[in-house]
Amino acid sequence: MNTFGRIFRINIFGESHGASIGVVIDGCNCGIDLQQEDFMEDLSRRKAGAEGTTPRKENDLPQIISGVYNGKTTGSPIAILFENKNTNSKDYDILKDTPRPGHADFTAFEKYKGFNDPRGGGHFSGRLTLALVAAGVIAKKIIPNIKIEAKLISVGGSTDIEKTVKKAIAENDSIGGLIHCTVSNLPIGLGDPFFDSVESLISHLVFAIPAIKGIEFGSGFDAASMKGSNHNDLIITTNGITKTNYAGGINGGITNGNNLEFKVAVKPTSSIAKEQQTINLSSGKIETLAIKGRHDACIALRMPVIIEAAIAIVLADLLIINKNIG
Amino acid sequence: MNTFGRIFRINIFGESHGASIGVVIDGCNCGIDLQQEDFMEDLSRRKAGAEGTTPRKENDLPQIISGVYNGKTTGSPIAILFENKNTNSKDYDILKDTPRPGHADFTAFEKYKGFNDPRGGGHFSGRLTLALVAAGVIAKKIIPNIKIEAKLISVGGSTDIEKTVKKAIAENDSIGGLIHCTVSNLPIGLGDPFFDSVESLISHLVFAIPAIKGIEFGSGFDAASMKGSNHNDLIITTNGITKTNYAGGINGGITNGNNLEFKVAVKPTSSIAKEQQTINLSSGKIETLAIKGRHDACIALRMPVIIEAAIAIVLADLLIINKNIG
Amino acid sequence: MNTFGRIFRINIFGESHGASIGVVIDGCNCGIDLQQEDFMEDLSRRKAGAEGTTPRKENDLPQIISGVYNGKTTGSPIAILFENKNTNSKDYDILKDTPRPGHADFTAFEKYKGFNDPRGGGHFSGRLTLALVAAGVIAKKIIPNIKIEAKLISVGGSTDIEKTVKKAIAENDSIGGLIHCTVSNLPIGLGDPFFDSVESLISHLVFAIPAIKGIEFGSGFDAASMKGSNHNDLIITTNGITKTNYAGGINGGITNGNNLEFKVAVKPTSSIAKEQQTINLSSGKIETLAIKGRHDACIALRMPVIIEAAIAIVLADLLIINKNIG
Amino acid sequence: MNTFGRIFRINIFGESHGASIGVVIDGCNCGIDLQQEDFMEDLSRRKAGAEGTTPRKENDLPQIISGVYNGKTTGSPIAILFENKNTNSKDYDILKDTPRPGHADFTAFEKYKGFNDPRGGGHFSGRLTLALVAAGVIAKKIIPNIKIEAKLISVGGSTDIEKTVKKAIAENDSIGGLIHCTVSNLPIGLGDPFFDSVESLISHLVFAIPAIKGIEFGSGFDAASMKGSNHNDLIITTNGITKTNYAGGINGGITNGNNLEFKVAVKPTSSIAKEQQTINLSSGKIETLAIKGRHDACIALRMPVIIEAAIAIVLADLLIINKNIG
Repeated sequence: MNTFGRIFRINIFGESHGASIGVVIDGCNCGIDLQQEDFMEDLSRRKAGAEGTTPRKENDLPQIISGVYNGKTTGSPIAILFENKNTNSKDYDILKDTPRPGHADFTAFEKYKGFNDPRGGGHFSGRLTLALVAAGVIAKKIIPNIKIEAKLISVGGSTDIEKTVKKAIAENDSIGGLIHCTVSNLPIGLGDPFFDSVESLISHLVFAIPAIKGIEFGSGFDAASMKGSNHNDLIITTNGITKTNYAGGINGGITNGNNLEFKVAVKPTSSIAKEQQTINLSSGKIETLAIKGRHDACIALRMPVIIEAAIAIVLADLLIINKNIG
Repeated sequence: MNTFGRIFRINIFGESHGASIGVVIDGCNCGIDLQQEDFMEDLSRRKAGAEGTTPRKENDLPQIISGVYNGKTTGSPIAILFENKNTNSKDYDILKDTPRPGHADFTAFEKYKGFNDPRGGGHFSGRLTLALVAAGVIAKKIIPNIKIEAKLISVGGSTDIEKTVKKAIAENDSIGGLIHCTVSNLPIGLGDPFFDSVESLISHLVFAIPAIKGIEFGSGFDAASMKGSNHNDLIITTNGITKTNYAGGINGGITNGNNLEFKVAVKPTSSIAKEQQTINLSSGKIETLAIKGRHDACIALRMPVIIEAAIAIVLADLLIINKNIG
Repeated sequence: MNTFGRIFRINIFGESHGASIGVVIDGCNCGIDLQQEDFMEDLSRRKAGAEGTTPRKENDLPQIISGVYNGKTTGSPIAILFENKNTNSKDYDILKDTPRPGHADFTAFEKYKGFNDPRGGGHFSGRLTLALVAAGVIAKKIIPNIKIEAKLISVGGSTDIEKTVKKAIAENDSIGGLIHCTVSNLPIGLGDPFFDSVESLISHLVFAIPAIKGIEFGSGFDAASMKGSNHNDLIITTNGITKTNYAGGINGGITNGNNLEFKVAVKPTSSIAKEQQTINLSSGKIETLAIKGRHDACIALRMPVIIEAAIAIVLADLLIINKNIG
Repeated sequence: MNTFGRIFRINIFGESHGASIGVVIDGCNCGIDLQQEDFMEDLSRRKAGAEGTTPRKENDLPQIISGVYNGKTTGSPIAILFENKNTNSKDYDILKDTPRPGHADFTAFEKYKGFNDPRGGGHFSGRLTLALVAAGVIAKKIIPNIKIEAKLISVGGSTDIEKTVKKAIAENDSIGGLIHCTVSNLPIGLGDPFFDSVESLISHLVFAIPAIKGIEFGSGFDAASMKGSNHNDLIITTNGITKTNYAGGINGGITNGNNLEFKVAVKPTSSIAKEQQTINLSSGKIETLAIKGRHDACIALRMPVIIEAAIAIVLADLLIINKNIG
């Protein structure tokens, strides 16, 4: 099921070292300005190159192959492709025998009976988040008044992010991080009670992003230690603005007009140059493994724009649905 | 969208003080033993009555009105109803003017333009989790070998749960709690990379439950502070068993054969007898509110069986899907 | 998969001789007037009683058990139940051994491995169209300006419908019929090219109704013998009105502002009192069968309101979707 | 909604004169042999070139850009592209003012507010059936034991197909046709009662194909004139084989083990060189139009392989679903 959304729907495909990765977006309104340049800002925020990100460099030029005519969306499905050019696939066959700890090598092999494409992580690669960011660019155009801002607020538990990443690199290691996301200027009334609560939809799409380990809205895990008299947000205006925002902008699964606030935990990249042990599935013996390839030391550095894209996709769909039904 | 699942699908309906609440379950295999008695254990675990839970008492006898013949499922949709008998609706009209802090009163009113049923929270009531628990009972029969166990591990930050709840009641207040869930004996290979990752599906359904504020899998939020060399779980057997379980039993969105582990934060019940302030939406004036009704002081007490039901529903669907496609 | 629709969604359940049959309707706007009386006209058009229809009589009073408060829809799922009172189940066990020709006895038994409820056709009964008609009543309220009219135009190839039905009854036989449906005052632009073409959605729901054997839009099967110069409808006004209507009101899967026109073929009821042969699945011997029970001689007599309901459901969903996306 | 299917899902995109058209296929089993050559037979059956088909010639080489590794499907989404090379787009701007009779020009313009790509019919082009045929090739590999055969049985009402097409060409006109499709060696038990009846799913996908005006199963429209005593198919073997096949291989929405039989009516191509009238939407005046471009005189000639693909897609999905649930 590589599809998400009810009306504004996205469908992604591709493997890290295949011909291309891509996304098909269905249910996008017609008449929206859309050209290659529109993708550049978000794509460059996701791009490799900064310290702590993978040295694999791709141009990542989005090719719009359908759904746009004369620079405007047509209302038909929008297909966008990204070529994989800078691939380097020689080292991957070994992974079927010696799965990397923390990776999907073992589960991919088991689930797909050995038929999965192992090169660069195949369909499991973080490279597929490129497709999510591209869809997010279009989604943001559907919700122009809503402001989404995700920030990396700590790495390895420290707010001195640059120093902490450098240290991890020096140690041939990797490091996790924490993202905070605020969405402002949201209309009241998006989302449903129960199955399509705003939290349900956001968490569904956020956990589709590789490396996410947790999500919390508003008070989040602190709520487990709080009393109702503290946790209840006092409503102080007739349009629902509250004094505190422990609710994170959502009550009963529905946006309440305050900022939507959530945090996301990103695990340290599994691929590290430091020696690790794993089992050889053929021989049953423990072996030592040092992952060469080209990898991020801190995948969280590239994550804010990906999280923003996920939120934009959820909100675009909810906004389209919400126009008609209560 | 009151539906969840792809093949094993559930559809819930009802309001707290309406005639009945219920659930329709589609895609359930035929030939499964199913009778009223089968629901009793889980329903009684969810039931009110213990200290800290609502004094509203309902028999909660499930009426199986379709999909079962001669004590076996027929393969046709199973509809189950629960009557609402012990209702007490006189006090609710006032809520449209003075929304309770922390509640969905305000968002429900705004989204549904005042047409929502406010009695007992209407469709937003925690009472609808009864339908989830009933569906969970059936889901558990589809995955008889998988063991799901959710436990309340702390309340208000304390492991002395009984004492902490008593104190909250004494203070006319409410209190949050933390649930830990372990799923063992899972097959390898459930779930998909990306949109239907196991984490995506579980979090989607868990956040459909009222009062959940956060979810984390395996290492969860700790991962944000960890290094890869620590976080990577060493694989120590050829069937994928790992030395640690920071992954929480999932790699690349797919179960890896280790225990699935996650935690969930439950907020303190919004309804408290203690005086609080809110705004009168008509007059624009701040007013004082003390909620009489019958409410839980610690909704987390009733939550473990609800979380288990949610997990069973997700896993039953994944198991059915997984039988056929890699 | 007992669900249909994207936003306005219906979910049916029940068996002919079970406790009740019912429907859950999701995605219905709030604030629509809805009470038991509103269902009576369409339900009575579907009802048994006229010559040629089954002597089984049910009150068929719809019980609205959720989603309506103070006589208005709330925006939450609407559940409607119909009790099965007048059942007479003693004769059905025999059908597992001697499947009735033309019936679903054999396929139901095979698909559900003998666990299906055979009484009165179980979940395969035409009685479930009651749920469709009830959903249609609500759908019609969402599209108040659109006029849908289905008529029985012939029975057994004759337009003297009364006489032809009488004759079939006298012969202990049953008879098929042809329905014509016209939808007027449709907006331009409903439907999608390809998968959700108006024809695709209508035919999907119409073929869900038991006993339908064919559907054709506009020129229909005549189109196979026509030339383009005749078949092309000349556009004669700037709002798209055409001189002829071979298109049946749809071009490229999308309504064109002319009347939507289609015909539906209804087969003769399979249950007949006349003796027939069938095989005994246990003995492998051919046996003679005369179906006693209570059955329609001409199910087509009750079909127009069912077809109208199906169309209303499709159009309500399309209208809701269409408000937002091109 | 450019998606069809529950587990085996297809998603098509593209415009006739855009960069490429394509299809993404989700839910396909891993380990299936798949290479470019496998598509050639069906693609060549669909191809232009025969008398009566469009002179536009495309290589139509499928580019498999994801989901296949070392010549086997991986279980990840399969994306297939077809470049549009031989396009000739100068003549299409005029269509926004003078919509062609029988075409989607008017509805596309209205629905998409003039933003649709009009070149070669844009997303409405019959060229998108190429994507369907490609998906059908893969679907057929999932159901290797089922034999699907669609044939053109008449054109313009005549079985002398060659002569009738020649005549239409000579008259600068086009001509409709009738397709008959037989599916043999089907397992018993595919499909559901009601919403996902086999007829519902097949007709849904068949009416997604441009130019289809009607579909009938088994006895089809003849059923409207028949008596039950004739129409009921006598079961003559314990595995459900019937003496006649008026049911068309389906009872109660479910395959019964006999051949699945249906007919489809194809309208004459709308584009004809013969002069026709239409309205100029700007001036409101009737104008004369002769369509130059490159078009089929008898689109039905290319239809059998497209119909087969549609059926294979439906049956592949049903077979996957059916493995697990009754």
